Amino acid sequence: MNANTPTDVMFSFTGLASRADEHKDGFGIAFFEDKGLRHFIDNHGARRSPVAELVKNYPIKSDNVIAHIRKATQGRVALENTHPFVRELWGRYWVFAHNGDLKHFSPRLHAAFRPVGDTDSERAFCWLMQELAKAHADVPSVDELSCTLRELLPLPARHGTFNLLLSNGQALWAHASTALWSLQRAHPFGAARLADEDLEVDFAALAAPGDCIAIVATEPLTRGEPWSAFAPGELRVFRAGQAQAGSV
Amino acid sequence: MNANTPTDVMFSFTGLASRADEHKDGFGIAFFEDKGLRHFIDNHGARRSPVAELVKNYPIKSDNVIAHIRKATQGRVALENTHPFVRELWGRYWVFAHNGDLKHFSPRLHAAFRPVGDTDSERAFCWLMQELAKAHADVPSVDELSCTLRELLPLPARHGTFNLLLSNGQALWAHASTALWSLQRAHPFGAARLADEDLEVDFAALAAPGDCIAIVATEPLTRGEPWSAFAPGELRVFRAGQAQAGSV
Repeated sequence: MNANTPTDVMFSFTGLASRADEHKDGFGIAFFEDKGLRHFIDNHGARRSPVAELVKNYPIKSDNVIAHIRKATQGRVALENTHPFVRELWGRYWVFAHNGDLKHFSPRLHAAFRPVGDTDSERAFCWLMQELAKAHADVPSVDELSCTLRELLPLPARHGTFNLLLSNGQALWAHASTALWSLQRAHPFGAARLADEDLEVDFAALAAPGDCIAIVATEPLTRGEPWSAFAPGELRVFRAGQAQAGSV
Repeated sequence: MNANTPTDVMFSFTGLASRADEHKDGFGIAFFEDKGLRHFIDNHGARRSPVAELVKNYPIKSDNVIAHIRKATQGRVALENTHPFVRELWGRYWVFAHNGDLKHFSPRLHAAFRPVGDTDSERAFCWLMQELAKAHADVPSVDELSCTLRELLPLPARHGTFNLLLSNGQALWAHASTALWSLQRAHPFGAARLADEDLEVDFAALAAPGDCIAIVATEPLTRGEPWSAFAPGELRVFRAGQAQAGSV
């Protein structure tokens, strides 16, 4: 989720968590508050984790949120293998979540970023951080970062499925290889119903007229809203709740 | 807390949180589970934070825990200024919490660790990580790390009060400049009563005979147990619940 105003994700997270029966090998969610970050992970599924209960019921307001429910492909079920992953670069936290599976992606990690666990995902994230650190001397503009990411992301993507979300609190980068959808909510707001759960919310009653919110997910979370599918290999960049020009 | 068996800290955290009236500018707690890490922070005090409620009631078992309640001296009340801080080095997470105040400690941060917030504490932590990274090529033994830390810690300590806790999940390093106490609980276990709260726990009923647990705090958390005061400038290293030889 990327928004122009601090927004809670209790509705969307409830929808995501309802899919945690299959994706039961852990869950995680990270909330930026300006440069600060709250990072909740659990190696239990979001269906029965007390941490997930807290997230569903505590209205944490954030302008950039990344959540993930894990179905282990590579790496055992353990806390250190639970997405999203976090690293610091240029005095900013970076958060990364990956849906998919990379085969034989073993880049040389010669710099300051090493995986703690043993997933293909964390390895790809560390490589990405290493290459970003080499490409820029300090935190660059969102547009410059998007350019660099457009060059870098196809490399791991050749090794398998690489749907990913990345944020540094300034923007949300979403790259699809097989499945990603985005949705923008803005004035006039309507009601939305979760796709997998009997829950409806009327955003007209909750949102202010100027609010602008973008949601990205591997499958549409709601029915009756205009979700837009990513093309394979597409990178979309969201800032203040809006897809950036040239990115959709 | 450092222990030889995964142990929950609900009792000790309840005692710590009861001191959060004065130290009301945020709280944080980090739990290692092997190499994995749970990191909970809130910029609300531990007295009324829903995150603190979760920690008090969810028996998270860990062998290395660092908790902190903040009374802001440098840096505004914000999530990015909330202890403990976390960085990755050599494929391990490192957790750092500081009690005290460093004046005019502005070391050159020329490597891969930069503060996200604006506290003296995070600056000192980034410097420490930078110097550790320079001193060793890969994760060294606990003894080697202790040697390096004994050389490094006096430098920031010259700038003010530098009571600190550091862990990478393998050991707990505790350095006192003005106030730090440690306690070992082992067989035969007895009962303990919180110093600031009307709560007593009988560890004989909870702990197994081989359990060994070390607790470090700026003030003794309980009455009737043999807390041992640190000398100014003293570093104690705890592993598997025991102070390492030469460290006490």
